[in-house]
Amino acid sequence: MSSRTVIRGGLVITAADEIHADVLIEDGRIAALAAHGNPAAEAWTADRTIDATGKYVIPGGVDAHTHMELPFGGTFASDTFETGTRAAAWGGTTTIIDFAVQSVGHSLREGLDAWYAKADGNCAIDYGFHMIVSDVNDETLKEMDLLVEEGVTSFKQFMAYPGVFYSDDGQILRAMQRSAENGGLIMMHAENGIAIDVLVQQALARGETDPRYHGEVRKALLEAEATHRAIKLAQVAGAPLYVVHVSAMEAVAELAKARDEGLNVFGETCPQYLFLSTDNLAEPDFEGSKYVCSTPLRPKEHQKYLWRGLRTNDLQVVSTDHCPFCFVGQKELGRGDFSKIPNGLPGVENRMDLLHQAVVDGHITRRRWIEIACATPARMFGLYPKKGTIAPGADADVVIYDPGAEQTVSAETHHMNVDYSAYEGKRITGRVETVLSRGELVITEREFTGRAGHGVYTPRSTCQYLN
Amino acid sequence: MSSRTVIRGGLVITAADEIHADVLIEDGRIAALAAHGNPAAEAWTADRTIDATGKYVIPGGVDAHTHMELPFGGTFASDTFETGTRAAAWGGTTTIIDFAVQSVGHSLREGLDAWYAKADGNCAIDYGFHMIVSDVNDETLKEMDLLVEEGVTSFKQFMAYPGVFYSDDGQILRAMQRSAENGGLIMMHAENGIAIDVLVQQALARGETDPRYHGEVRKALLEAEATHRAIKLAQVAGAPLYVVHVSAMEAVAELAKARDEGLNVFGETCPQYLFLSTDNLAEPDFEGSKYVCSTPLRPKEHQKYLWRGLRTNDLQVVSTDHCPFCFVGQKELGRGDFSKIPNGLPGVENRMDLLHQAVVDGHITRRRWIEIACATPARMFGLYPKKGTIAPGADADVVIYDPGAEQTVSAETHHMNVDYSAYEGKRITGRVETVLSRGELVITEREFTGRAGHGVYTPRSTCQYLN
Amino acid sequence: MSSRTVIRGGLVITAADEIHADVLIEDGRIAALAAHGNPAAEAWTADRTIDATGKYVIPGGVDAHTHMELPFGGTFASDTFETGTRAAAWGGTTTIIDFAVQSVGHSLREGLDAWYAKADGNCAIDYGFHMIVSDVNDETLKEMDLLVEEGVTSFKQFMAYPGVFYSDDGQILRAMQRSAENGGLIMMHAENGIAIDVLVQQALARGETDPRYHGEVRKALLEAEATHRAIKLAQVAGAPLYVVHVSAMEAVAELAKARDEGLNVFGETCPQYLFLSTDNLAEPDFEGSKYVCSTPLRPKEHQKYLWRGLRTNDLQVVSTDHCPFCFVGQKELGRGDFSKIPNGLPGVENRMDLLHQAVVDGHITRRRWIEIACATPARMFGLYPKKGTIAPGADADVVIYDPGAEQTVSAETHHMNVDYSAYEGKRITGRVETVLSRGELVITEREFTGRAGHGVYTPRSTCQYLN
Amino acid sequence: MSSRTVIRGGLVITAADEIHADVLIEDGRIAALAAHGNPAAEAWTADRTIDATGKYVIPGGVDAHTHMELPFGGTFASDTFETGTRAAAWGGTTTIIDFAVQSVGHSLREGLDAWYAKADGNCAIDYGFHMIVSDVNDETLKEMDLLVEEGVTSFKQFMAYPGVFYSDDGQILRAMQRSAENGGLIMMHAENGIAIDVLVQQALARGETDPRYHGEVRKALLEAEATHRAIKLAQVAGAPLYVVHVSAMEAVAELAKARDEGLNVFGETCPQYLFLSTDNLAEPDFEGSKYVCSTPLRPKEHQKYLWRGLRTNDLQVVSTDHCPFCFVGQKELGRGDFSKIPNGLPGVENRMDLLHQAVVDGHITRRRWIEIACATPARMFGLYPKKGTIAPGADADVVIYDPGAEQTVSAETHHMNVDYSAYEGKRITGRVETVLSRGELVITEREFTGRAGHGVYTPRSTCQYLN
Repeated sequence: MSSRTVIRGGLVITAADEIHADVLIEDGRIAALAAHGNPAAEAWTADRTIDATGKYVIPGGVDAHTHMELPFGGTFASDTFETGTRAAAWGGTTTIIDFAVQSVGHSLREGLDAWYAKADGNCAIDYGFHMIVSDVNDETLKEMDLLVEEGVTSFKQFMAYPGVFYSDDGQILRAMQRSAENGGLIMMHAENGIAIDVLVQQALARGETDPRYHGEVRKALLEAEATHRAIKLAQVAGAPLYVVHVSAMEAVAELAKARDEGLNVFGETCPQYLFLSTDNLAEPDFEGSKYVCSTPLRPKEHQKYLWRGLRTNDLQVVSTDHCPFCFVGQKELGRGDFSKIPNGLPGVENRMDLLHQAVVDGHITRRRWIEIACATPARMFGLYPKKGTIAPGADADVVIYDPGAEQTVSAETHHMNVDYSAYEGKRITGRVETVLSRGELVITEREFTGRAGHGVYTPRSTCQYLN
Repeated sequence: MSSRTVIRGGLVITAADEIHADVLIEDGRIAALAAHGNPAAEAWTADRTIDATGKYVIPGGVDAHTHMELPFGGTFASDTFETGTRAAAWGGTTTIIDFAVQSVGHSLREGLDAWYAKADGNCAIDYGFHMIVSDVNDETLKEMDLLVEEGVTSFKQFMAYPGVFYSDDGQILRAMQRSAENGGLIMMHAENGIAIDVLVQQALARGETDPRYHGEVRKALLEAEATHRAIKLAQVAGAPLYVVHVSAMEAVAELAKARDEGLNVFGETCPQYLFLSTDNLAEPDFEGSKYVCSTPLRPKEHQKYLWRGLRTNDLQVVSTDHCPFCFVGQKELGRGDFSKIPNGLPGVENRMDLLHQAVVDGHITRRRWIEIACATPARMFGLYPKKGTIAPGADADVVIYDPGAEQTVSAETHHMNVDYSAYEGKRITGRVETVLSRGELVITEREFTGRAGHGVYTPRSTCQYLN
Repeated sequence: MSSRTVIRGGLVITAADEIHADVLIEDGRIAALAAHGNPAAEAWTADRTIDATGKYVIPGGVDAHTHMELPFGGTFASDTFETGTRAAAWGGTTTIIDFAVQSVGHSLREGLDAWYAKADGNCAIDYGFHMIVSDVNDETLKEMDLLVEEGVTSFKQFMAYPGVFYSDDGQILRAMQRSAENGGLIMMHAENGIAIDVLVQQALARGETDPRYHGEVRKALLEAEATHRAIKLAQVAGAPLYVVHVSAMEAVAELAKARDEGLNVFGETCPQYLFLSTDNLAEPDFEGSKYVCSTPLRPKEHQKYLWRGLRTNDLQVVSTDHCPFCFVGQKELGRGDFSKIPNGLPGVENRMDLLHQAVVDGHITRRRWIEIACATPARMFGLYPKKGTIAPGADADVVIYDPGAEQTVSAETHHMNVDYSAYEGKRITGRVETVLSRGELVITEREFTGRAGHGVYTPRSTCQYLN
Repeated sequence: MSSRTVIRGGLVITAADEIHADVLIEDGRIAALAAHGNPAAEAWTADRTIDATGKYVIPGGVDAHTHMELPFGGTFASDTFETGTRAAAWGGTTTIIDFAVQSVGHSLREGLDAWYAKADGNCAIDYGFHMIVSDVNDETLKEMDLLVEEGVTSFKQFMAYPGVFYSDDGQILRAMQRSAENGGLIMMHAENGIAIDVLVQQALARGETDPRYHGEVRKALLEAEATHRAIKLAQVAGAPLYVVHVSAMEAVAELAKARDEGLNVFGETCPQYLFLSTDNLAEPDFEGSKYVCSTPLRPKEHQKYLWRGLRTNDLQVVSTDHCPFCFVGQKELGRGDFSKIPNGLPGVENRMDLLHQAVVDGHITRRRWIEIACATPARMFGLYPKKGTIAPGADADVVIYDPGAEQTVSAETHHMNVDYSAYEGKRITGRVETVLSRGELVITEREFTGRAGHGVYTPRSTCQYLN
C-alpha cells in the first residue's frame, strides 16, 4: 500500500528547531526531512504533494487532558469520542489522552474497559487513557502495576470532590508510593475540597448562589495549599507529581519552589486560565455558568504569573481539560445553586489557535508553542517520539498551519458538540489548514476528510522527564 | 565540487530528539535526514559513507568560552588558535567563541582586529568572538553598536581584577543600557574584586601564600554578591545578562531566584567546577597551582547544586573557560605568592567527554548533554541553527561519538599545548571517533585529518533566548 | 492581713530590663520596685525580707502546655494536678495552662467541668485551661464563644491522631473562622496524621516495632506540610494561629515565611526538641520509649534551627508539653509495637533550668530566657500583666534564682511523679532557690512550703499579640 | 541637692509593660515605681509632684540619627545643636545621637573634636555621637578602636555620594572587619551611588531637572542591591550591620531574608518614608524640593511594607535622619538641577507624635511605639538602661504624653529652625505635655523651661543586640 506524501516549502517547527524543509511521509510515518530545494528533496516522488509555502508545518497537537462523555453531576459531558476527536482534529490536535474513571467499589479494569468501549471505533485521531483512581486499596494498587505495563501509565487523584472522586492523604500517599515503584505518574487535582465544601455550604446559606460565588469559595490559597501538600506527599513517597489545571499564581509559586529544589514536580495549565478570568464568571443572566470549572477562573492579575510560569518552565504543559456541558439543559442545572452547575468548559478545538495567538502577542516563542502543546505532553506521558515532533521515524501527525489567517471564534462555526463557546467573538490570527494523522488526511484545506475509527488506541510508556 | 557524505546507522541525538536516522551532507551542510533503512535514505549516493552503527551522531560541540593566547599576568595562555582549535576538534568541539580584548585606553576595534589577526588562517574549526570591554566610555559605547552589527554580539565585563579588566558599577550599567538597545548580551565575571583584593593582601600579609589560599580569599559569598549585583544592574538597565563560570551554590541560588521572577538572566558553569574542588587546590608541592582559576574551585558540596542547576535549567551552558598555562615556567610564577599564579585551566579538549561521563553517571540525560554543550550555547550567542543541531540546512558540524569506548585522560595523550591535565588519570566512558566541520573530516577515526585555516570566522546574530 | 515581703539586693530580670532593684510585695502583688540602696527602698518595712544578693529575681515561669492526668492510649499521664503543680513550683514555674479535653459526642462544657474538678483544690500554683476541641459542630462552635467569655480563650485542634482527637480541614476551618470572630486562638498539633498512620501500618507490617521507628514514620516533611496547611487555613479564616511543639526545621521555615508575610502566626517549641534527638529514641532495651512523644524528637541537626528560631522570634514560646508516663507499666505498653507507647515526656520541673543552661551556653540572652518562658506565654494567652513580669500591679509570682549553683538532673531527686527523667545525669548551672506565688512562699530555700489548694484557677483574656 | 519629683496617676508605658504606677525620681534618676494608690507610693515625699492622670508616662525618645549643622552641598543643615535639641525636646525626644564627620585626609579625632565643640554647652538634652568614616586606612582603623573605648561605638559608611562620603567595598570590608573585633557597629547608607550618579547625569542631560527626578534616578532596586551587598560584606567580615533610613520594600525584603538566616542585621526607617511618598516629590513650583532626601521617598505602595517590617521586627528602629535645609536660600540651590538640592528633611520634633498617630491608626501597638522610638535605639547604641526605659536606676528622661490632645503640624508653630514643615497641615492625635531630662523639667506643660547646656555628652557602650 505504501502511500507517500510530500509536504513542500513550509517552515517546519518543532520544540527545538525551525527549518525550511520538505517532509517525506511514508506508511504513516515521517520518512525523511530535507532542505527545501535540495536535490535530495526534489528526488522524492509521492502519491500526494502538499504545498506548504508560507505555512508552518508543525507536529499535531497532543491534548493530555480531555473528558469525553464524562459522567458528572448527574449528566454527561456533551462531546462523545466521535464529536470530540473530530473537533480536536479541526483544531490541529491529533492525539488526546482522556480519563477513564474508576467508580468507588469497582476495579480499575472495569472502568478502563468501559472507556475502551466508548472510544473504540469512534475516534478521528489517536488516543490514550489516564486512569482516575477513586478508591485506593490493596487491589487497586496491584491493578496499577498491570495498567502501567499495558500502557496506562498515569493516574489521577483528587484532593477535591469529597464523596465522589476524593482521595484522602493516606490514599494519595499509597498511590504515590506505588507509582514510585512501577513508574507511573500521579496527576493531581489540587484543591482542598474538604475546606472548600465548608465554604460552599456557608455561601449557599448566605444566599450567594450565582456562578461567581463558585470562583469566590474555591480560593486560590486552597489551591496553593493542596499543591504544596501534594508536593510534600510526593516527596515522602519519592514519587514524581504532575499537577493538573494550575490556575492560581500562589500555586505556580509552590511549583517553582519545588522545582528549584530539584524535585520531579510538573505543572499543567489550560487556555481558560490564560485568557479568561473571574470577570467571565460574573457575567449576568447566569451566563457566568459557562465558565464554571474547577480549579476556577481567577482574577485577571493571575494570568501574567501563568504566562511567566510557562516561560520559566515552572509550568510545562498546556492542556484543555475539555469537558463541555451545554448551557441549555446542562449548565442550567445549577440555576439557584452554583454548586450544581456541571464543572467544565469546552476547548479541545481552540487550544492550538489560542496558543498561537500567544505567540503573536509575544507571550511565548514559536518553539515554546510547540513544546508546551505537542512535544512536552508527548514526553510527559510516554508518547514520544511517536507523537509531538516531526522527525524521521515519528508518526506522521502533521498540521499545516497558516500563521496569517484571521478567524473569529464562535459556537456557530466550531465543531464541538456544545451550544456555546467560551471564547465567543475572540479574534485570532492563525488557523489550521490541513491535518494529517499517521499520514492520512483528516482535515484537508479546512474540510473534514477523516473518519470515525481512523484513530487508534495508543499505549504509552512511562514519563520521560524523571531525573 | 558538490561533495556528498552519508552517515549511516547511528543514533542521531539533538537537544530535542533521539532518532535512528541516516544523515546526508552536501556542500558542507546537512541536506537531509531519513529513517535508517528507509528507501529514501538508501537512495542517497555519496562520495563518502561513514558507518555509525552503534555510535552516536551528535552536533559538534560549541565552546562559548575560550581564551587562546590570552595575555595574563605577564605571560600568555599556552594554546595558540592553531593548537587550541586542533585540540578542540579532538574533543568533539567544532566551534569556539574566543574573547578579543580591549586594552584600557584603546578602542574595541583595535582589540578585535588584533584577535582577528591572531586567529586568521590558523584555526582547524570555526570560531567567533566576544569582546572584553575594559574601558566603557562614550566612544566604546558607540563601537558596541557597530560590533553587534558586524557579528560580535556579546561583551564581557569584569567585576573582578581591579586595575586590569575591572569595570565599576557605573560602567557596567552604561554598557548594559547600551546592550538593551543594540541587542548585545553582557557576559559578566561576577566576583567582588575590590573586596577580594583586600582579602588577598591580608592573606599574603599573614604568610598564606600557597595556592589553596586562592580558594579561601575568593569567597563564595563574594561571587554570590556580585551575581546579585549584576542581576540588579541588568534589571535597572532592562538588559539581559549572562553570568560566566558560575561555581558557588550561593550564586546558583541568585540565578534561580532571578529566573523565577522571569528575568532574562543566564548562567554558565564549567567542567572544572563540576568535577574538581578545593581538594585539588590543596594538593601539595605547589601542584595546587594547576587548579588556580577564577572564580575558584569550591568545596565538593557545591557540585551537587551545580548539577541540580543544570537539570533545573537555572544554569544553561557548560563552557570550558579554556585558558591553559604550563605548570613549568608559567604556574610557577606564583610560587611564594598565590596571587601571581596565572589564572586558568586547560579543558577545551575534555568538555564533551566529561559531560558524556555525566550522562553515564546519571547527572544529566543525553539530550541535555547536547543541549548544554551544543544547542544552547549556539542559540545563546546567535549561531543557531547553523551550529548546535543536526537539521536540514545546518552546517555539517557532526561528531561520531562512541559511547562505549573507555579512555583515561592524560597530558601524555592530550593535544592541548600544556604540560599537565587537570583531569590526569580520570577514567571516562565515551570517546570522539570522527569529527566533521562543515562536511570536512577534521578527525577521522581518531586521526587528525584537518588543517589550520579550515576554520573560518563566523559572525553571530544576537541572543535567541530573550523573552 | 496585708502581708508585706521585701526582696533585696537581687538582679531583677524581665523580658525588657535587667535592674538592681529591691522588690516590695504587698497583698500578693508587686507593690513597688526601687533602686537597691535608695532611701525609698530602705524605707520599706516588711513582715519578711528575702536576701537575693547575688541572685536573679525573675517572674515565675508560665508553662502554657501541660497535660496533668491526661487519659491517653488506655492509661493516664502519671502526674496529678497535685504532684504536677508541686513539681512545677520546684522548677520555678508558677502558672500552668493545662488542656481540658472534649470527648467526641460530648460538649465542651462537660469536658471543661471535668477538668475544673480535677484541678480544684489540688494545685500548688495558679492554673488556667485551654480546651481541646475534638468535635467541631454547630453546638461546639457556639460553646467556643461562651468559653472565650469565661476565660478559656484558646482551643487546641489536632491534624494528627485520626479517630481520637483528629479534626479534618473543614472542622479546622470552621473553628478558625469562629475564633476570628470571638477572639479565641487556635492551637494546632500540626502533623499529617492520615499519612503518618499509613506509614505506621507499613512499618509495623515490616516488623519495625522499636521505639526508634516512631521517629522515622512521623516525618519532618509531614510536620512541615501540616504546618503550612494550618497557616493557609488560618489565612482563609482570617484567624491567628499558634502551632504547638514545633520540632522540625522545615516547620520552622514555614512559620518564618508566614511571619515575614505579616501573618499572625506563632510557634512554640519544647526543651526536649532543643536538648534531645533521635539518638535518644534509638537507645537500646526499649529505653527509647522514654522519649516517645509527638511531634517526635528529630535528628540533632534540627536543634540549631530551633535555637535560631527562638533568637529570630520565629518561635516565641518554650513550653514543656509535660505529659509523663512511667517507663514501668506505661511506656511498656508499647513493647513490640511502638504505636502503642503512650506519647509524652515529663518536663514541667526542668524547663526553667534547661533554658537557663541555654543562657549559659550562649544560645539566648537572659532577657530572652524570661521572654520565652514567662512574658510571652503570659501575653500570648491573656495572663499579662498579672503573670510573666515583675512590675507594680502584677501578681507576686517571683523566683529567686541562683545562677551559679550546679545541679545534676535525676529521677532520684526530681519531684514529678514519674520513674525516669528524660535528662538523667545532665549537668546544669543554675537552680531555683525560692519561689513565691502571689506573695506566698511555695519553695523556700529549696524546701517545699506550699500547699495543694493554694493555686487558683485563673481566667484569661484573649491573645495580646494580634496585629 | 537631692531633688525629688513624683509623677502620679499616669499609665507608665515601656517596651515591655503598661502599668498604672507612680514614679519617684531622685537625683536625676528613676528611684522607684509603685502601684498607684499603694501606700508605698503615697509615702513618697517630693519637691515637685506632677499629676499625670489620664496621661501616658513614657521614656524620653531616643533619636539615633540626626545631623545638626551638617555641612552638605555647600551649605549647612539649618538647625544648630541649640535649636535642634530644643526642638527635639518639644517633640518628646530626650537623647539624640548625631553624626560627627571625618573629612577625607583628616583623622577621625579631628572630626570628632570638631563635633564635640559644636555641641558642647549648647544642648537642651543629652547627646552622643556616631562617627562618619569617610576615609578608611590603617590609621583610621586604629582610631576606630580608640573611639569605641571612649564611647563612640558606631561608624557610618556610605555606599552613595562618590567623591564625598563614599567608601568602596574594600574600605567597607576593612571597617567591618575592625568592628567585628572592637565591638563597633557599622551603620550603612545603602544605595549604589556609582550607578545612581550615572542615572543622575543621564537625567540631567535629558533635561529632567525637577525634584521628582531625584526620586526616579535613585531607584529602589539600587537601594536593595546595596543593602544586599552590605549584608554579604558584613557576613564575610563576621560583623553586625545596621542599615540606616530604609525606604524601599525590596530593601526590607533583603533585611528579612538575612534576619531569617540568623544574621546580626538591623534596619532603621524614618517617619518620612512611613508618611510621605513620591507624590510629595512631585509637588509643583519646586515645592517637591522640600522632600528631597536620600534614600528618596518612594511610591505609596512601599509604605505598607515598611509598617509590616516594623511589626515583624525586620525593621527595629525609627529615627528621623533630621537634616533640615530651608526652602528659601538652601533648597533653592537646586532649582534647575535636582542634584544640587541639599539632601535632608526636618523631623526631630515630629517623630514621637507621628508614631503615636501610627498607634491611633492601628499600625503598631503602644508598647511597640516605645520600643522602636526609645528602647531599641537605646539598646542598639549602648545607652541602655540609662536611656530608653522607665525603671529604677535609669536616667529620669520622662515624657508626660497626652494621648487625646489634637494638634496640627505646621512650620508656624514648630520649633525647628527651618522655614517649612514636611508635614504641614497634618492632623495628629496626641501631644507632648511635659518633658524631663535627668529629672529636670525641659518642657513644662508646653512651655520650654530647659536651657542650652543642660544636655551632656553621653558616652556609649557597644550594641546590646548581638547574638
